[in-house]
Amino acid sequence: MPSSFIGNALRGTFFLIFGLWWSVKYPLKYLRRKANADDAASYGTQRLEVLEGTVKAFFALAGILAEQFAPPGPHMLLYSPETHSWTDLTPWHYTTMYLFFLLSGVVEVVSHSPLKLPLGLDRLALAIALLIEGLLFCSHDYSEAALDSHLRGLLAIGIFAGALCTLLEVFIRDHFVLELFRTSSFLLQGSWFWQMGFVLSPPWGGPGWDPTDRGNFVFLTMCFCWHYAGALAVMAVNSVASHCCNESCQLKFGDIDVELDCGLCIRKGKGSRGALLPEGGPDDK
Amino acid sequence: MPSSFIGNALRGTFFLIFGLWWSVKYPLKYLRRKANADDAASYGTQRLEVLEGTVKAFFALAGILAEQFAPPGPHMLLYSPETHSWTDLTPWHYTTMYLFFLLSGVVEVVSHSPLKLPLGLDRLALAIALLIEGLLFCSHDYSEAALDSHLRGLLAIGIFAGALCTLLEVFIRDHFVLELFRTSSFLLQGSWFWQMGFVLSPPWGGPGWDPTDRGNFVFLTMCFCWHYAGALAVMAVNSVASHCCNESCQLKFGDIDVELDCGLCIRKGKGSRGALLPEGGPDDK
Amino acid sequence: MPSSFIGNALRGTFFLIFGLWWSVKYPLKYLRRKANADDAASYGTQRLEVLEGTVKAFFALAGILAEQFAPPGPHMLLYSPETHSWTDLTPWHYTTMYLFFLLSGVVEVVSHSPLKLPLGLDRLALAIALLIEGLLFCSHDYSEAALDSHLRGLLAIGIFAGALCTLLEVFIRDHFVLELFRTSSFLLQGSWFWQMGFVLSPPWGGPGWDPTDRGNFVFLTMCFCWHYAGALAVMAVNSVASHCCNESCQLKFGDIDVELDCGLCIRKGKGSRGALLPEGGPDDK
Amino acid sequence: MPSSFIGNALRGTFFLIFGLWWSVKYPLKYLRRKANADDAASYGTQRLEVLEGTVKAFFALAGILAEQFAPPGPHMLLYSPETHSWTDLTPWHYTTMYLFFLLSGVVEVVSHSPLKLPLGLDRLALAIALLIEGLLFCSHDYSEAALDSHLRGLLAIGIFAGALCTLLEVFIRDHFVLELFRTSSFLLQGSWFWQMGFVLSPPWGGPGWDPTDRGNFVFLTMCFCWHYAGALAVMAVNSVASHCCNESCQLKFGDIDVELDCGLCIRKGKGSRGALLPEGGPDDK
Repeated sequence: MPSSFIGNALRGTFFLIFGLWWSVKYPLKYLRRKANADDAASYGTQRLEVLEGTVKAFFALAGILAEQFAPPGPHMLLYSPETHSWTDLTPWHYTTMYLFFLLSGVVEVVSHSPLKLPLGLDRLALAIALLIEGLLFCSHDYSEAALDSHLRGLLAIGIFAGALCTLLEVFIRDHFVLELFRTSSFLLQGSWFWQMGFVLSPPWGGPGWDPTDRGNFVFLTMCFCWHYAGALAVMAVNSVASHCCNESCQLKFGDIDVELDCGLCIRKGKGSRGALLPEGGPDDK
Repeated sequence: MPSSFIGNALRGTFFLIFGLWWSVKYPLKYLRRKANADDAASYGTQRLEVLEGTVKAFFALAGILAEQFAPPGPHMLLYSPETHSWTDLTPWHYTTMYLFFLLSGVVEVVSHSPLKLPLGLDRLALAIALLIEGLLFCSHDYSEAALDSHLRGLLAIGIFAGALCTLLEVFIRDHFVLELFRTSSFLLQGSWFWQMGFVLSPPWGGPGWDPTDRGNFVFLTMCFCWHYAGALAVMAVNSVASHCCNESCQLKFGDIDVELDCGLCIRKGKGSRGALLPEGGPDDK
Repeated sequence: MPSSFIGNALRGTFFLIFGLWWSVKYPLKYLRRKANADDAASYGTQRLEVLEGTVKAFFALAGILAEQFAPPGPHMLLYSPETHSWTDLTPWHYTTMYLFFLLSGVVEVVSHSPLKLPLGLDRLALAIALLIEGLLFCSHDYSEAALDSHLRGLLAIGIFAGALCTLLEVFIRDHFVLELFRTSSFLLQGSWFWQMGFVLSPPWGGPGWDPTDRGNFVFLTMCFCWHYAGALAVMAVNSVASHCCNESCQLKFGDIDVELDCGLCIRKGKGSRGALLPEGGPDDK
Repeated sequence: MPSSFIGNALRGTFFLIFGLWWSVKYPLKYLRRKANADDAASYGTQRLEVLEGTVKAFFALAGILAEQFAPPGPHMLLYSPETHSWTDLTPWHYTTMYLFFLLSGVVEVVSHSPLKLPLGLDRLALAIALLIEGLLFCSHDYSEAALDSHLRGLLAIGIFAGALCTLLEVFIRDHFVLELFRTSSFLLQGSWFWQMGFVLSPPWGGPGWDPTDRGNFVFLTMCFCWHYAGALAVMAVNSVASHCCNESCQLKFGDIDVELDCGLCIRKGKGSRGALLPEGGPDDK
């Protein structure tokens, strides 16, 4: 049904937004770190992380509300008393998935706040959110059979690759290659959700692809690889663009933005961050 | 049967007690380490570890005795001569599981004693106990089919996650994020054992949930995620509580407790610990 | 059919060439590094890497063109309008596989160019190419059944072993044992592609091996191990040969080649490399 | 048949001998290293490694000859021309397994010889031998069905655990906890081979255990855990014994044995080892 297409498209957009944002953010961060190697964790970066966490939590909350209260949703009802059976549990599955992304957003906000939370906790929360998502997609069984399961199996590969990468980031923080890989896994997930929408419930109506044609399975596996190639291409373009943008910005503005950052940043946050960093030791063990 | 419920409840309580205790202990340890960064391994901590190991070994021993000698138990009999077949092997499975936790408790006590055992051995023993538990739950096959196996499959995810985390701790000791993750996996296991008891053999009697309803499977997968969310919530509350408690304690008592610790700790133990630490090198390799 | 044999032979040759080249290159690099421990990344090495990447990209491009335009190829046609079904997707599978090796070649060329790309990106690109190859071989399902799938299952073991090793090299760069293991996995893949060609479509015509004889399966598993033993033997011979060659060269030419390298290398590249190295920090985390 | 029992017993003894030897060697090494922390790689140790490699290679060669030429063996014949089919491939499987242990022994001898082989290669060779063994046991399919496959599945767990541990040792050398774990996995393998012999072909004749009784499967899983507990107990006893022995030796002989070692050791070997160590850098990355 079209409602299922909209659901997949919204989920896809959620991941695409983060993937695209990171594909600009991390190259810029890498370039800045190379330019002035000393102030690794600038205060502007920190405020960005708080903003990112807030946006993530907000999107996740919106997702939960949409899954629960959009027309065919269960309205927070888990067990229907009249039929003496479970209501449709699919929206609950997505609610659970969004719940952990909400949690990840909250942890990210809190761990970059003046509170003295240990480093690595934000990455752990994101990794847990991805692992839970992967678990839900692996165990999910709709009535419609093989093609759906094949699509979700491929999605799970992308999810678990991102989860493993994020788990590694708990220990190896600020490693550019890991950040890039995580970005690519988010772009892949995002575009694959859109693909799933088109395959299972095309927006122009109709029954979706034929699940009895083996050619569809073979093609979709290949298509998954092309999505990944596309994600890499987008990242390459964004990296080059952010590189050019960075160079022209630096010519024009010099260190004005750095000044601005310092002026605006909350003094307390700065202090606590400074106190945190010497204990950052554990994360390079 | 109710006896099966009691068994699951006892196992669940075993893991919950450790999870809850760690959810207070590790945040406190983290806060103290941040306050006075120099004495990483205080002597009070060391006595606590010995106590923890003793309690673990005692619980495991009690578990073995309960499994063997509680009414339908095999009374240490493996092969029944009259029927020429194995006795019911389920209590033996749990006995084996407890045996390795007993071993882990003993290794923990010994490795914090004045004996010069290498660091990391206590974590290895715990990881082995969890791996053996996971192996037993994966291979366990009761007569009752799919629902039981689904529940134990989910449990195994929690067990192996905890085991991997503990294995990592052999190499990366005193990493706060790993300690938190291990704590969360124990809380998850504990509450999931209770859930298994309620699903398979409700304490109010009755036949347990319907294993032919697919909705139950889908719901339980989701429920597993909620248990984990609950475990994280409990940890967050306990962390905040221990933070507040720590602050008020420090205001009132100052370093009295540290003095107390030093006064009471066994001199020999202190010495050997000092001798151990320089060799602690391997764990940051 | 013979065309299938030629395809497997070409793929095998692609991997064998790289395996053989590396089995000479890495021992020589190791010996040189031992001789003069200071200049870890000599400029000659850098130009070699660029050449290697160019050759890899060229081979991959040739492979794509051969798969698409050699006689039974699909000529870039994915969906045949007359039969209203997919064209034969096997050449497309191989095209996808070569596409990622092309990408890996391009990244290798660029990352050793004067551009300031972060270290480890070339290894990541190679690991991604291998992971995609493994994914395609695991999901590939021809009509011919069990024997083909067994052969590809064994191949996938070699592919994933190489991929894991290359992923590790993102973090642990220039580790001789990892480089050797990667080399051996490429030699194994290469010779196994030839074996697959002989088993499935012998060049002298005929129907291939009997897929109903269990003995064939057992023999091929063993044969896979012997291929690996052969790969290790080839590497041992090449290492000894390159050691002897290195010694006699050093006696004759002294450091002439080093001089030559320095004289020819692009100044800009040298400079950028020097600028890159201090940031190489992340890769030894 | 009894011949199968003898084969399993010989394989078991091979692993038990190494497990028992290591359960004495590594605690002693640990105690010595603690006593005099400076000379990490004593020359006596080095000669021991060469001896160990020689014994391993000799045992593996003996195993190959026994598998090939003991009465029902294939006498190096792979394809029987009269029946136009493969000969019994089981002895060939074991021959392949021993071949890689032979290789591992040779690499161990060579890498502790005056030749300048990189560190970690001996561990890689052992890990490869174990991985190949695991692959062969996983893919092995006899005619006798489920019970045999269950036994070999359990064995494979022990093999892969040992292989992973040995792979880690390529990077983290001389880590006492890893060495202990490897030792325990060898003891487990060794005693499990004996168990397999007793279950599948009892030495007192008879048909082996009933493969249709589910109780046997459940019992054997548990029994595997008890074997591991037994392996740990043996290691604990040997560690304590070697500790006592070490203390009494030191009292009596002082550093006489160290003197003896230095006097006997090959000068050239000493020199090359000294030259090797500074390059050992990669292995603690």
